[in-house]
Amino acid sequence: MHPVITLTTDFGLNDPYVGIMKGVILNIAPDAQLVDLTHQIRPQNILQAALVVKTAHSYFPKGTVHVVVVDPGVGGVRRPIGIKNNGYWFVGPDNGVFTSVIDSQALCYELTAEKYFLKDVSTTFHGRDIFSPVAAWLAQGKTLRAFGHKIADPETLDWPLPKFDGKTISGEVIYVDHFGNLTTNIDAGLLEGVFEHPESLEVQLARKTLKGPVNSYSEAREGSPGVIINSWHALEIFYRENNAAEKLKVKIGTPVRVTQAR
Amino acid sequence: MHPVITLTTDFGLNDPYVGIMKGVILNIAPDAQLVDLTHQIRPQNILQAALVVKTAHSYFPKGTVHVVVVDPGVGGVRRPIGIKNNGYWFVGPDNGVFTSVIDSQALCYELTAEKYFLKDVSTTFHGRDIFSPVAAWLAQGKTLRAFGHKIADPETLDWPLPKFDGKTISGEVIYVDHFGNLTTNIDAGLLEGVFEHPESLEVQLARKTLKGPVNSYSEAREGSPGVIINSWHALEIFYRENNAAEKLKVKIGTPVRVTQAR
Amino acid sequence: MHPVITLTTDFGLNDPYVGIMKGVILNIAPDAQLVDLTHQIRPQNILQAALVVKTAHSYFPKGTVHVVVVDPGVGGVRRPIGIKNNGYWFVGPDNGVFTSVIDSQALCYELTAEKYFLKDVSTTFHGRDIFSPVAAWLAQGKTLRAFGHKIADPETLDWPLPKFDGKTISGEVIYVDHFGNLTTNIDAGLLEGVFEHPESLEVQLARKTLKGPVNSYSEAREGSPGVIINSWHALEIFYRENNAAEKLKVKIGTPVRVTQAR
Repeated sequence: MHPVITLTTDFGLNDPYVGIMKGVILNIAPDAQLVDLTHQIRPQNILQAALVVKTAHSYFPKGTVHVVVVDPGVGGVRRPIGIKNNGYWFVGPDNGVFTSVIDSQALCYELTAEKYFLKDVSTTFHGRDIFSPVAAWLAQGKTLRAFGHKIADPETLDWPLPKFDGKTISGEVIYVDHFGNLTTNIDAGLLEGVFEHPESLEVQLARKTLKGPVNSYSEAREGSPGVIINSWHALEIFYRENNAAEKLKVKIGTPVRVTQAR
Repeated sequence: MHPVITLTTDFGLNDPYVGIMKGVILNIAPDAQLVDLTHQIRPQNILQAALVVKTAHSYFPKGTVHVVVVDPGVGGVRRPIGIKNNGYWFVGPDNGVFTSVIDSQALCYELTAEKYFLKDVSTTFHGRDIFSPVAAWLAQGKTLRAFGHKIADPETLDWPLPKFDGKTISGEVIYVDHFGNLTTNIDAGLLEGVFEHPESLEVQLARKTLKGPVNSYSEAREGSPGVIINSWHALEIFYRENNAAEKLKVKIGTPVRVTQAR
Repeated sequence: MHPVITLTTDFGLNDPYVGIMKGVILNIAPDAQLVDLTHQIRPQNILQAALVVKTAHSYFPKGTVHVVVVDPGVGGVRRPIGIKNNGYWFVGPDNGVFTSVIDSQALCYELTAEKYFLKDVSTTFHGRDIFSPVAAWLAQGKTLRAFGHKIADPETLDWPLPKFDGKTISGEVIYVDHFGNLTTNIDAGLLEGVFEHPESLEVQLARKTLKGPVNSYSEAREGSPGVIINSWHALEIFYRENNAAEKLKVKIGTPVRVTQAR
């Protein structure tokens, strides 16, 4: 058996912090499959971490433990928590990084059982001292009850949601990836729900008006921007063989408006 | 048994894309050894990916599945392919990334068996929806025939080859590594084949003339450039304890000329 | 059984060098758990590598093999070595990267048994040709004696040590992490040893005087610098929700002075 544990942090890759967490885990769960989701969350950007958890967690086998350490309040009053939902476990700080998996089905526990933590828990690195050992013990078959008590009020973020006024969907860019592709908070289901012809839209952002969506990147003209429904079923603005974020000077939060094409 | 699957992409490390591919793989091949070759291929640079495959693939155990996702034509007309050659499998887009392993011995298949793909294949992320599951099934023992039909015309790139005019080898820099070391397309076998004294050469690039090769980096004078036969058996220009690409202002494609030293 | 092998290099993540080392290891130790500590050691910075080994190695299970390839003298006269100490193995160049684990208990061997190396050892990539196979064979149960002969004079670095003049500890910044937090060479034990009230200190660096230490990052005023005992039990200067290295224009080697607060 190879339980899977994923790690998502804002630690970057220059320091041995992530490796040390893996060392702690392997002391307890020597057979674990350790997978990095990303360690390049912008420092202390809880929303970005929450989006990564949202898009990635369900591609893993049931039983996977997802650890997130984006933790500006480490050592302060924020609680360490463990969550079980939909066959997955989640371990990290109670600061909103798990917003997408907290619903009425979610079991949430504050982690308080110090006997499972490293000795002499630091105030600066709970990823090493609390979250890694708890994740490893979960991977080894312990249940959340072993680590603390249930809580009913885990922290959640206010997601930026799109609005529809009967004619126009007003949303925004919520994620910019390595290629400069711009994911919006407008998903395919919404477009299909409100527009008669969701295959023929006008998308406005940064003073540009784009028609679409196209069915594949290669349908856009070379050196031109385009609109597509991407692999998260979200409306995305891209630039054929170029970086849309740079070319259009767009960043997270830039407004996007969608109407039926005339 | 721990089948090995390597991943080479231009996805970078900021986004969860690579992690998601690993999640998909671990659903099918829970015991796989997952190894990253690099995810820092320059966006859509097929030649760089092909060079990485060329230099790296044979250091892995026979039976390893090498997945490459550098895929500017994703969702368009380019085919997804699987290749078997020399005891290794290769899975990715049919766009030339596998040029170095395509020869008369190679078995090449177009991947068409949708039952092995993720449901609802996207047009933007075949790494997740097609290549990862196929690679995982190959690692689990399926043969290429299960996934599609044989093809005889896989895409290959024109490699930049060196020329010899009876006196001078004219080649070029084909790879610049993290240290700024400059690998050329002139290999040790060629030098030995055409020069009487391959241990005593003159190498010209960027208006510099260098003598060599030396036997180890430490034989070069401190703060000076040097020439060496590197770990790929290729002629390399380096700078003792410095970055040759920066110091010499050289990049990929810069011409290199080699003659017998007088 | 899943023996653990960690890798620490200055190879960066753009090139397939680290992946190739893993391929070589998996030919010999197919069940190994391979963990990256970091591959972003600044090129040829032996002290930084030595600090990473010092802080990270003991968080791993006993029996772990730690491989370090920061190796400016590759192919020259420096020896390849293997070390056993405190239940861990260490493999790499004899240039000081293992300073922290070399003491009177350490068993140090020069690696000379070519039959365990890759055929045709290059002069530029001992990480692939010597250190990876030796680490893999150690993980498989071979003992150091198999690889060479004992040596009594391994290389060690002079660590920068703090001084105390009866009133002031004079130390320096020895590590800057991804967040810009500044680790000094002044550890908690020293502070407790020389000051009557180690909970009430004055710390001077870069013309700033800071009071502390605080018990957690969140005790510092927002947008202000603070002092804390960090997860390595060392005095650290940080900046609340900001990058101390950038804000204070501090780098490795910057002097730090600590006195009892008045």
